[in-house]
Amino acid sequence: IEARDVDRLKALTIPLHEADMGDLLEALDADERRRLIELLGPDFDFTALTELDETVRVQILHAISPRIAARGISALDSDDAVYILEDLDEDHKAAILEHLPAPERVALLRSLDYPEESAGRRMQTEFIAVPPFWTVGRTIDYLRETADLPDTFYEVFVVDPGYRLIGAVALDRLLRAKRPVLMTAVKKDQLHVVKASEDQEEVARMFEHYNLVSAPVVDDAGRLVGVVTIDDVVDVIQEEADEDLRALAGVGSDEELSDTVGYISRSRLPWLVVNLGTAFISASIIALFENTIEKMVALAVLMPIVASMGGNAGNQTMTVAVRALATKDLGSHNARRVVSREVLVGLINGLVLATALGAIAAFWFSSAQLGAVISSALVLNMLAAGLFGILIPLAISRLKLDPAVASGVFVTMVTDAVGFFAFLGLATWWFSLT
Amino acid sequence: IEARDVDRLKALTIPLHEADMGDLLEALDADERRRLIELLGPDFDFTALTELDETVRVQILHAISPRIAARGISALDSDDAVYILEDLDEDHKAAILEHLPAPERVALLRSLDYPEESAGRRMQTEFIAVPPFWTVGRTIDYLRETADLPDTFYEVFVVDPGYRLIGAVALDRLLRAKRPVLMTAVKKDQLHVVKASEDQEEVARMFEHYNLVSAPVVDDAGRLVGVVTIDDVVDVIQEEADEDLRALAGVGSDEELSDTVGYISRSRLPWLVVNLGTAFISASIIALFENTIEKMVALAVLMPIVASMGGNAGNQTMTVAVRALATKDLGSHNARRVVSREVLVGLINGLVLATALGAIAAFWFSSAQLGAVISSALVLNMLAAGLFGILIPLAISRLKLDPAVASGVFVTMVTDAVGFFAFLGLATWWFSLT
Repeated sequence: IEARDVDRLKALTIPLHEADMGDLLEALDADERRRLIELLGPDFDFTALTELDETVRVQILHAISPRIAARGISALDSDDAVYILEDLDEDHKAAILEHLPAPERVALLRSLDYPEESAGRRMQTEFIAVPPFWTVGRTIDYLRETADLPDTFYEVFVVDPGYRLIGAVALDRLLRAKRPVLMTAVKKDQLHVVKASEDQEEVARMFEHYNLVSAPVVDDAGRLVGVVTIDDVVDVIQEEADEDLRALAGVGSDEELSDTVGYISRSRLPWLVVNLGTAFISASIIALFENTIEKMVALAVLMPIVASMGGNAGNQTMTVAVRALATKDLGSHNARRVVSREVLVGLINGLVLATALGAIAAFWFSSAQLGAVISSALVLNMLAAGLFGILIPLAISRLKLDPAVASGVFVTMVTDAVGFFAFLGLATWWFSLT
Repeated sequence: IEARDVDRLKALTIPLHEADMGDLLEALDADERRRLIELLGPDFDFTALTELDETVRVQILHAISPRIAARGISALDSDDAVYILEDLDEDHKAAILEHLPAPERVALLRSLDYPEESAGRRMQTEFIAVPPFWTVGRTIDYLRETADLPDTFYEVFVVDPGYRLIGAVALDRLLRAKRPVLMTAVKKDQLHVVKASEDQEEVARMFEHYNLVSAPVVDDAGRLVGVVTIDDVVDVIQEEADEDLRALAGVGSDEELSDTVGYISRSRLPWLVVNLGTAFISASIIALFENTIEKMVALAVLMPIVASMGGNAGNQTMTVAVRALATKDLGSHNARRVVSREVLVGLINGLVLATALGAIAAFWFSSAQLGAVISSALVLNMLAAGLFGILIPLAISRLKLDPAVASGVFVTMVTDAVGFFAFLGLATWWFSLT
């Protein structure tokens, strides 16, 4: 197909949904992608680009001329256009913008002016706003007669002459109302408004909390400047949960399957270097007890068990804490209760596991005393895991930092340190090995 | 306020959004919750219950009489009613259903008949369907004149006399069309239909992929039985990402902040027991080299570093793999490429870190040979981490199991085993310590 047959190609690809077209583009190689877009010409729907990994999208935009890119982008809703443009470098972005008609260029530049990850970047500047004295009938007539409406919309906004937002009317309310009813009479009881400068995570939280499908965006003066819709919010929710997951594992939030080996190696290295540092801290603690280990090698065999069990328990507590902080379920109102709960859970599971571990260790090395020492060390470490597994994320979030990014390192450091120190220290003291 | 003042209470709580009412209920204690609901009487909106943690919801429903619960539930949309009922035990569910009018009871029982986590459970059975010969005008008149419509809707469906789905009309298209136009002429080009028996994750995937806000649900015979809306899907997306995160850390997916200490201890214990088992495997590998360690205690000091670096690198790879599998970005079409990429990343980062680790170890123990041994062991373990960090989730997902649940145990087992074995084995051979 890739050779010439434009008609056949158009017949095959034009009925495709933009998301499926995106999948198709990702499956092709760089050269095929460029040729496909050239062959389709104006029939290529640039919305498909919003469905691609960033790497692929940037590569495609570099392969086609700025003029063609500008033509495609000008057909898009403003939120999609911003989404495509924001990842490009400044020169390339300017080259494409130059080919756009002035009013569109100005509108896009205004959106791009908002900080990254703000509502202003995610909003669509196409929306429908009517004055408060309009009736339902007049609004419907206006919708029927106006050709240049947004592609999709879920609400009609009511604004005063200064474009300040008065209310929002959901389409189902509009359809149910009689024609002579005033728009202000059918507006929603509660208006959930987004500020353009607001962080996209806050916006997502609001959509989730109030089950919204669309929300008006206002500037600092309270003027309606755009609308955020649920499809953009779904992406944010997805990204946000993914970010926490990746941060906990020390993977960069922007890593994608299509990235190169070099890029991925570099992006994962910092986390590993930090962990190398903490591993050396654990090693230095073990080094304190070199004499002890020399006299009783069984300790070297058993010590990783105490450390790793504490690490696992700390990780459980920390994961719950990080997500609860992200969804605002955990806050100062219940922190004290959750901390004592986690410590108790650590104590209970510590006692259960210590019994099992102590029995097996005692049997393995035929020493009840060794069993008692390792049991005590495990209980201490499980307590530390519960306590620091929750306190560390809480403290990091109190410092206004993201607990998902840094908690893991500190929690592992604590459970390793306490695990090795408690076990080797107790053993040294108990068996008087110095 | 909790004492008597019903009027004041109503004035304060009735304007609240259901989500805020839910937050309020969670903040109260059990007795206050019951009294608040009793005082509000028929003015209490049961939708607030859908915003609560399961534990709190079940506790409230146990505190109030089945008759009052039935009255509140019958005012809800069917998806909310099912959501509230599905967590109750059979007897309690039956007691509440008994107080419902027969047609509602039958409808709810039918929804509850669908498997848990299926589209049938999440759908709302209230929807608007019109015959294909209706015009836009007639549909709008019908919407204006019918009192008993669903609370919110985003589409009007077109069905044949046998209730088989012909098409769906988005409200914005309906509003833009002229009155005499036939409904079939404004229906969507592409219809995305959900089967009632479909898994809710599949439904969420479809909504995300095609940016939907609502989708019709059909039974096995193709008859329209309900509609799934984006607010339910957002919850599913959120839950799903959370499930992966929790599964990777070995925390039960149903654990909530309001659960008791006993419940949480029990739910976290199985994962810790499994890890205790794998920790013993690592310990047995170390035990193989007891003689070696006795002769060179520095090995005991350094060995956890090799194991933990491998564990961290394996965890990075595994996290990326688990999420990519969940979002279907990773599949048989690109598995080979991703595997070789991960192995290469492991090799590159292994070489970088091995240089640093080798230098520090050589300096610390004044032994260039020890530095060379630990470097080689680290490179081997980083290679194993890359390879098994991706192969294990792939294999588990090939077996149709959830890679998030089991991958962690196996990956850690491999990186611990390879780490200890490679380092202690190489040292034994190099320094001829037997």
